[in-house]
This record gives sequence, C-alpha cells and structure tokens, in this order.
Amino acid sequence: MTKVQELAGKIINGDRRALSRAITLVESSRKDHREEALELIALLTASGKRATRLGLSGAPGVGKSTFIESFGTYLTGQDLRVAVLAVDPSSVRTGGSILGDKTRMDRLSRDPNAFIRPSPSQSHLGGVARYTRDAVTICEAAGFDVVMIETVGVGQSETIAAQISDLFVLLLAPAGGDELQGVKRGIMEMADLILVNKADRDLRHAAMRTCADFAGALRLLRPRPQDCKGFPKVIAVSAVQKLGLSETWKAMNELLNWRKEEGYFDINRAMQARFWFEEDVKQGLLARLYQNTVRQMISDFAGDVEKGKLLPSQAAREVISRIQDQK
Amino acid sequence: MTKVQELAGKIINGDRRALSRAITLVESSRKDHREEALELIALLTASGKRATRLGLSGAPGVGKSTFIESFGTYLTGQDLRVAVLAVDPSSVRTGGSILGDKTRMDRLSRDPNAFIRPSPSQSHLGGVARYTRDAVTICEAAGFDVVMIETVGVGQSETIAAQISDLFVLLLAPAGGDELQGVKRGIMEMADLILVNKADRDLRHAAMRTCADFAGALRLLRPRPQDCKGFPKVIAVSAVQKLGLSETWKAMNELLNWRKEEGYFDINRAMQARFWFEEDVKQGLLARLYQNTVRQMISDFAGDVEKGKLLPSQAAREVISRIQDQK
Repeated sequence: MTKVQELAGKIINGDRRALSRAITLVESSRKDHREEALELIALLTASGKRATRLGLSGAPGVGKSTFIESFGTYLTGQDLRVAVLAVDPSSVRTGGSILGDKTRMDRLSRDPNAFIRPSPSQSHLGGVARYTRDAVTICEAAGFDVVMIETVGVGQSETIAAQISDLFVLLLAPAGGDELQGVKRGIMEMADLILVNKADRDLRHAAMRTCADFAGALRLLRPRPQDCKGFPKVIAVSAVQKLGLSETWKAMNELLNWRKEEGYFDINRAMQARFWFEEDVKQGLLARLYQNTVRQMISDFAGDVEKGKLLPSQAAREVISRIQDQK
Repeated sequence: MTKVQELAGKIINGDRRALSRAITLVESSRKDHREEALELIALLTASGKRATRLGLSGAPGVGKSTFIESFGTYLTGQDLRVAVLAVDPSSVRTGGSILGDKTRMDRLSRDPNAFIRPSPSQSHLGGVARYTRDAVTICEAAGFDVVMIETVGVGQSETIAAQISDLFVLLLAPAGGDELQGVKRGIMEMADLILVNKADRDLRHAAMRTCADFAGALRLLRPRPQDCKGFPKVIAVSAVQKLGLSETWKAMNELLNWRKEEGYFDINRAMQARFWFEEDVKQGLLARLYQNTVRQMISDFAGDVEKGKLLPSQAAREVISRIQDQK
C-alpha cells in the first residue's frame, strides 16, 4: 500500500488528523505534492460518498460567522456531520472571513461532529478553485453530511463557490428602504436562497422590509428551470436568537429533494464537472498569460494601449507572436 | 497612396460608399482582408475623432426597433449624425434584432444623417466583438456624433456592447407587479440608464410601476464611482408617441458631461482599451481550444467527466499534455 492509499483509507475511516493532513497536501503547490494530491483525490472520489454542498456568500458585517456557528450547531444537533471550508482569494484579510478567526465560532469549532478549515493564504484564483474542489471531495469521503463553502464575496469567489455547490445561499443584513445594501450586482443571479439575518429586536422590522424588497427584486428576474415553485426564496433569520434555522434547513431540503426527483441535482453536478474540466483546460492554456515574461510583454504595451497610441488588436498580435517565438 | 490609405481618406471625407465598403472589409475573416482591416483601423484611429457611443440592450418585444427609429430621428432633428450597429452573435435570427429588418426603421434608414448597418451573420463571439469595435472606429472617423450599438441580449453580447460603449442603456417593457420581466440576471449591473418603453395609453400606469420597481431594485445594488447623483436612472418613454426622448438625451448628457469633467469618461475608454488588449491576447491563446483537434479531445473525455468516471483535473491534464505534444 502506498503512502497515499494509506492516507485515503484513514480519511474514509474518519481519522481527523488524516483529514487535516490531506487538506494541507492539496493546499500545496509543490509539484510532488500535486502528484500525490491528484492520486489521493482520484482514490477518494471512487469512494462515491456524497454530501450536501452549500455555498454561502455574504459581505463583511452581515453576521456570517455567527450564522455559520448557529446553523452548523443546529445541523450537528440533527445528528449531521458538518464541514466548513472557505473560498477566500484575497491574501490580505478583509475582516470578512470568519474562518480567519475560528475563535468567533467557539462552539462549532469544539463540536466533534464539525470540522472547520480556514482558507489557505494563497491568492491565485485558479489555485483557490482547485484547492476548494479537492477539499470538498476530501470532506465528502470523510463522511460529512453537509459541506459549507463560505465566501466573502470578493471578485469571482462566488462563482467558484456556486460552481462547487448544490445550493447557493446569499446572506444579507437588514437595511432601510433607501439604504444601499451593497449587494454585488449579478450575485442575485446565483442565489437559490436569500437569508436576511439579524431579524431580531429593533432590526426585525427592517429585516422584514429587506425580505420584501429582495422578494420583489427576484420577481423581476428570469425564472430558472432548476427552481421549483417558490424559489429562489427569501427567509428572515436571526443567527443570534437562532430563529429561522429550521425553516432554512426545511427550504433547502425542499429544493434539493425536488431537484433530485426531477434530475436537476445530477444534471447540476455533471454540468459542474464539465465546467471545471473545460476551465482546467483553459487555465492550462492561459497559464502562459500569467508567466512573468508574458506579464512583462503585456505591461510593456499597456501604457500605449491605454493612451490610444496602439490599438488593442495590434498590441495583442505583437504579444501573441512573441509568445509563439518563445516556444 | 495605397488602396487602404485612399479608402481611409474617403471615409474621413464622409463618402458613404467608402463607409459601407470599409465595414464589409472588417466583417471579413479572410487573412488578406484582416491585414488590410488592421491597417485601415490604425489609420482611422489616428484621425482622433470621437462619437458618443451608446450601448442599447433589450429583449425581443420591448419595442427596440421603434425606439431606435424614434430616438435616432430625434437626434438627427438636433442636427446630430447617427450610426446604428448591431452586436448579434446568434446566426439564427431570433426576431429580436431590429437590424435584421431595416424596413421597420423606415424613416431613419432614409435619413441622410443616419447610417444603419445590420449585424454580419458570423456567429463566433470573438469575431463579433472585434468586428463591432472596428465598425465603431470607422463610424467615428466618418464623423458620426452618436454611434448606437444595439444588442439583443443573447449570451455575452451585452458585455461586448458595454465594453465598447460610453453609456449602456437597458430598454424594458412595462409589466404587472407579479409578472416576470425576464431581465437576465446580472444585466442590471451594467446599466447606466434603464428606459421603460410603451409608457403610453393603457400601459402608462404599468410602465410607471415598472419604473418604480426597477428604481427600487437599483437602490439595492452597490454604488459605482462612475455614477453621478441620481444614476443609474430609470426613465419612462414612449417610442410610438415620442415621449421622454428629450429627457433621455438630457440624462445621457448629464451623466456623460459629469464623467468627462471628473475624468471617468477617459478612464473608461482607457480601461476598455486595456480590456480588449488582454482579451485579444487571451483569445490568441485560447484559439487552440477552438481548434477541431482540441474540441475533439475535449468531447472524447467529456462523457467520462460528466459521469464522474474521470476527474475534471485529470482529464484536463491529459488534454493539455496532448496539446503540447501536438506542437
């Protein structure tokens, strides 16, 4: 038995240290580690275990850490095993990622049925996507029932989380009618469920109004085939007072079960696999774009392009021909 | 003087036949035509003339053809010269593009101060983007004051139109409160101005409600630095009764003048040039992805990837290594 086979066996048997070690392995960009990681992921995928993958996006300040703590604890209370991972391509902490601060999830982090893993500090987006996909596979093989993929909503991180998840959840804070929510334009496109947090005490009224506002905004959007009646849904929750958690879990299961019955669950996973396949081929081709020599060529021309002295197409042609000469 | 220099001279002097011929030239994908087109565009760019570039997006049925007819005629009535181009990557006509049907714009198409050009029938998205950018440059050099870039809202065509435009306008039809607008999720992200058409007769009330709905939805989105107070703005118009046209033009100029004063107009054009430069380099690299041999490799593996028999990353690695062996 190879070292990697041994590691795979331990993970499947629920060994926590093996789980952590495996995630550290897939975080590494060292070439030999990458080889081992690819072998490990292939072995673990063969185990065929599946978790419910929940993507969770929310801006700093919406109470994401408290929500994950409350909702995660609610789920472990239902005898479910819960893993929490982060997609955070920013190398500098924005203060938005709860996972940089495990101590804020005091209870869940000590729960034997929960596993929390902060995002690695690498910043290359392609790397983050690949690492997160691998980490999800490891957690599934380790027998977790629910894998939450948290994102702070920077750049394309929601797209990554959405393309890995079975359900994509947007967490919001209440706001006055004229106050700006700061919801990134386009993110509503991906939400299966919108949760308005802090629906307690003096914010309860504002939360209800925010729910109505977003329900109205969702009605303006085009319906999607993968949504059953009533979805995307908006629910008011309070992470602090633990309100709306069972309603949220019930709504998630309603949509997931419908999708499973109608085939959209499997179609979605197949489409995601296809997406990541083509994405990985693209990344392989575009890898050249990120080579220092090519970045240098691009920045050599960028000034003239921006000033209008050189056409974008002329400059691009020059760069491409230099890349080809390089080879 | 070369043939291309002669053509450029005629365009700049306002020769309509030369204008049409130049656009036909940039539509062509023949290699020698591409060379001539590149030379022509470089010459015309050097003329330094600038038009106001208006992107206009709207689904079939919102009255886009009537709006362009009315608004275009309003502009020529203000002594402005107007060109209308289409971004339509669909090779099969959906019935949505007015430009497939010039006869619907009877008055504008006969107006000596207007120029209308249907979209070429090629369907490759990269080609459409490149062609449209070139056609805009040609129209600017020919002295048009306003270049409208119309898109039917299929796939990425709005992104192309938005990355070419100084202002991006979304045209909508009125809808009942619970009726679905079918606005593609994410498109609101790009709109500087939302026009609700058909605000006349029995639809007037519904149009006003739609305006209020979208104004509400816009307030939920994050503000952008390039917007002055009150933008993105929602305006009710009637293309048939010619209502709201001067208000629309006034709003456009308000935003454009503010952006020019604050520097956002130039920043936007510089960023667009940079965007197309990097995009053209990417396309050059990704061109391999669209080669038949590579498409074949991808479809050879796609079934196993979708079924979960092969990991996306494994399959991608295999394809990339085959591509490299090819060279």
